[in-house]
Amino acid sequence: MAKTELYETSVAWTGGHRGHLKLGNGPEMDFSAPPASYGEAGVLTPEDAFVGAVNTCVMLMFIWAAERFRLDLVSYECRAEGTKLIELDRTEIFTTVVLRPHIAVRAGDEPREAIEKRVRRALESAQKFSLVANSIKSKVIIEPEIRIETRLGGK
Amino acid sequence: MAKTELYETSVAWTGGHRGHLKLGNGPEMDFSAPPASYGEAGVLTPEDAFVGAVNTCVMLMFIWAAERFRLDLVSYECRAEGTKLIELDRTEIFTTVVLRPHIAVRAGDEPREAIEKRVRRALESAQKFSLVANSIKSKVIIEPEIRIETRLGGK
Repeated sequence: MAKTELYETSVAWTGGHRGHLKLGNGPEMDFSAPPASYGEAGVLTPEDAFVGAVNTCVMLMFIWAAERFRLDLVSYECRAEGTKLIELDRTEIFTTVVLRPHIAVRAGDEPREAIEKRVRRALESAQKFSLVANSIKSKVIIEPEIRIETRLGGK
Repeated sequence: MAKTELYETSVAWTGGHRGHLKLGNGPEMDFSAPPASYGEAGVLTPEDAFVGAVNTCVMLMFIWAAERFRLDLVSYECRAEGTKLIELDRTEIFTTVVLRPHIAVRAGDEPREAIEKRVRRALESAQKFSLVANSIKSKVIIEPEIRIETRLGGK
């Protein structure tokens, strides 16, 4: 049967355009609006939390998929860019989040093409099973750079 | 004319089910999956980032609306709960985010009813103009507790 889980956070206004955020899993941090929207530099913003939620979720699902697809993962780094559209009536929406993961895997004895295909399938799986990607209206686009490491002088 | 802005974050895998997140506005932090999903306690999770994005965004838009609606705000604290639905095929989605703001405002010389009505209108405005609330598929429900402070022995 389908099941549900609850996740909670708390915020408190600390004056001006600032607040303090407590996350259910433990960390606490100050936050503000982006400097371009009358906020402050150096702290969490809703924009960064949103783009970060997508970026962290897709990475963790890729790590999970890499285990399932038996990839020998060396590294995963990913820059994510969210595009905020500001309408004439001042309503705003994130229309797109583009993820650019740089992924390195070891080839072992398999052909590079077979490995690269598995990496791409693992990424598709990561996107399909990503809680955050599934929960947002923004179009999620993944543009990977894949590096296959082969052993020099290996079998 | 409508305009767009870009917001970016970067993640890097640090082994196991862990990574390091750099936010565009400055802060950096470790992250993991929730402990219930083979992750670690004490760090950011995608779930908390998502619910925190909604919670911080609605608060900041309420602060902005409170200025526009000329409310004399004393305090704003809000607990937000996101409900994650896990389907039989293991896909997941946040179906609902419930926000429970506790808001205190000073009444000044106005009737309490007029102030409370303005607080509710400011909350509606905050939800309407919240970037994150507009960018998610989850139903956003705001259940406020409003306290109007009147001056004892005042005019």
